[in-house]
Amino acid sequence: MHKPLMMYVKNTIFLKEKSLILIDRRRLPLEIKKVACNNFEAVAAAIEDMVVQGAGDIAITAGYGLYLAALEAEEIIKRDPEMARELLYKAKSRLINTRPTGYHLAALLEDMLNNIKWEDYNWADQLLNMVNRAVYNKQRCAELTGRWASTLLEDGDCILTHCFPGSALLYMLKFAVDANKKVEVVSTETRPYLQGARLTSWSVSELGIPVTLITDNMAAYCMNQGKISKIFTAADRIALDGTVANKVGTFQLALAADYHKIPLYILGYAGPDAGCSGRENIPIELRDPLEVLYFNGMRLTGEKVKGFYPGFDLTPPELVSGIITDRGIIPSCNVKKYWDIAGS
Amino acid sequence: MHKPLMMYVKNTIFLKEKSLILIDRRRLPLEIKKVACNNFEAVAAAIEDMVVQGAGDIAITAGYGLYLAALEAEEIIKRDPEMARELLYKAKSRLINTRPTGYHLAALLEDMLNNIKWEDYNWADQLLNMVNRAVYNKQRCAELTGRWASTLLEDGDCILTHCFPGSALLYMLKFAVDANKKVEVVSTETRPYLQGARLTSWSVSELGIPVTLITDNMAAYCMNQGKISKIFTAADRIALDGTVANKVGTFQLALAADYHKIPLYILGYAGPDAGCSGRENIPIELRDPLEVLYFNGMRLTGEKVKGFYPGFDLTPPELVSGIITDRGIIPSCNVKKYWDIAGS
Repeated sequence: MHKPLMMYVKNTIFLKEKSLILIDRRRLPLEIKKVACNNFEAVAAAIEDMVVQGAGDIAITAGYGLYLAALEAEEIIKRDPEMARELLYKAKSRLINTRPTGYHLAALLEDMLNNIKWEDYNWADQLLNMVNRAVYNKQRCAELTGRWASTLLEDGDCILTHCFPGSALLYMLKFAVDANKKVEVVSTETRPYLQGARLTSWSVSELGIPVTLITDNMAAYCMNQGKISKIFTAADRIALDGTVANKVGTFQLALAADYHKIPLYILGYAGPDAGCSGRENIPIELRDPLEVLYFNGMRLTGEKVKGFYPGFDLTPPELVSGIITDRGIIPSCNVKKYWDIAGS
Repeated sequence: MHKPLMMYVKNTIFLKEKSLILIDRRRLPLEIKKVACNNFEAVAAAIEDMVVQGAGDIAITAGYGLYLAALEAEEIIKRDPEMARELLYKAKSRLINTRPTGYHLAALLEDMLNNIKWEDYNWADQLLNMVNRAVYNKQRCAELTGRWASTLLEDGDCILTHCFPGSALLYMLKFAVDANKKVEVVSTETRPYLQGARLTSWSVSELGIPVTLITDNMAAYCMNQGKISKIFTAADRIALDGTVANKVGTFQLALAADYHKIPLYILGYAGPDAGCSGRENIPIELRDPLEVLYFNGMRLTGEKVKGFYPGFDLTPPELVSGIITDRGIIPSCNVKKYWDIAGS
């Protein structure tokens, strides 16, 4: 296993015999707990429960879920090919409905079923090849995105980040350090799920880069103190008008960054969702309020208090300084034009 | 005991024989745990450890601490009055140094020792009278501030708040409801100490008013959704230039409020610190980073990650729509003029 754990997709999402193994991100970094999913329903539940997270990683996970469904389908394929096919479509719907805000999951599964050769009955093999290719592409895309992003870093930079922006952040930092730039990182803890504490700050520390954890409400103070020179987050979906959907809290970071004239860059990986014209087309996932009302099994407040948990928010393009993709850095006001050229 | 518990100072900070009893706010609302402090050092430690919180309440607590020191001093007063007096000054310094950002604590203790009649040897009785008067005044001040604040509320308002703004918030809501205004509240949880979850949202629910808990990073999203009509927080210190020091996170709420044109009001109780001209005179308390790195005894991230915990931040006057005191509502740009008239 290569370190840091979170830098490589294969470290935390992989097949073992006919099970999908996920490293439970809710337990990291203090415990490496493996969750085995033996069928697509178990994969869907794991995605919903956030055993795995991040738009790109949940897409890969769902891809493996579709492969597990194909293994099931193959058992009936000769007897009833239509029923077998229906099983795959049912699995696709179930997996797509787990988490609506990110677009990578639906895009990958649609693509997989659109490209399957139904007349060949080795569906599982075909789908597994497609997922493996997606894993390779995702890793390569993260590396390229990180390389472009590292060109923005200067010696002495202190980078604020929110949630876990995926391995592009780690590549970015690694390339900067390799180029003898001294950088450090401030990470929000990212409540309620604490991805910033559990995944980001831990992974950055594993790279040997100085990292400081703050609570989400301290970001503007740190900016005001002159501690932060640049901000980087990922995106769960980028619309063609440049609107960025990302982990809730990104929008208020962007407002504070704008006030302090600190650039905010989006690690945009493969770029925008070509089917999404603007903010009105991005569904915001509302998660179970109990995840706000409880922490580690302990209720935080009185019984009559309600909770509210929007998982994501929308940052308008005028608050974003640039979107970094695997093919270069584009201004947020120009996303559609980029897509017209690069995406075609 | 009158409900809600947090509405009345005497419910959570009171003498029992020669001990000061504090209801541990780190355990509320799920457990009513009493912490007994038998001397001023125990009181100082309880303030530092946040058994009690809120600038006004820690002032009262420290006042009782000075009273406990006077009980000790009286044991040696006849033998060595100078040493007894030194003991009181030592206690004052120890108590003042517990938490630097709020000004009420130092103001109360200085005032107490300035007004003591040293020639009468009943120092403890004198100080106890002064603390009892301070408790009465604080309760009255909260009620008046709440009454003024309630005049700003309209039927249908949804109020966002941060941290625990003290009982003025509860009075404000109560008066509004008594005047048949329908109001509801959204409370941030306020990491790392969760005052919003533990104290504010619970207390509001005890008033029978609908209240929703969110994590700190969801505030701007809620504003953007049109859910929030007004924002109210307290202040640990208000400078004469209108700068507001309050629980960290207030500043970024103010930036998001400004973007969305939502008024932000400060529950300012007795008004500004007359000895503080501007932001450069407000010390920001840096607390133990372990309070960010651990939650409920559990480390949240890797061993190589550092933590940072500024307890407060500064909101500039141009982001504040009004400061509500016990004597009326003043514009934040006019704090000095108010003080020149009302404070003299």
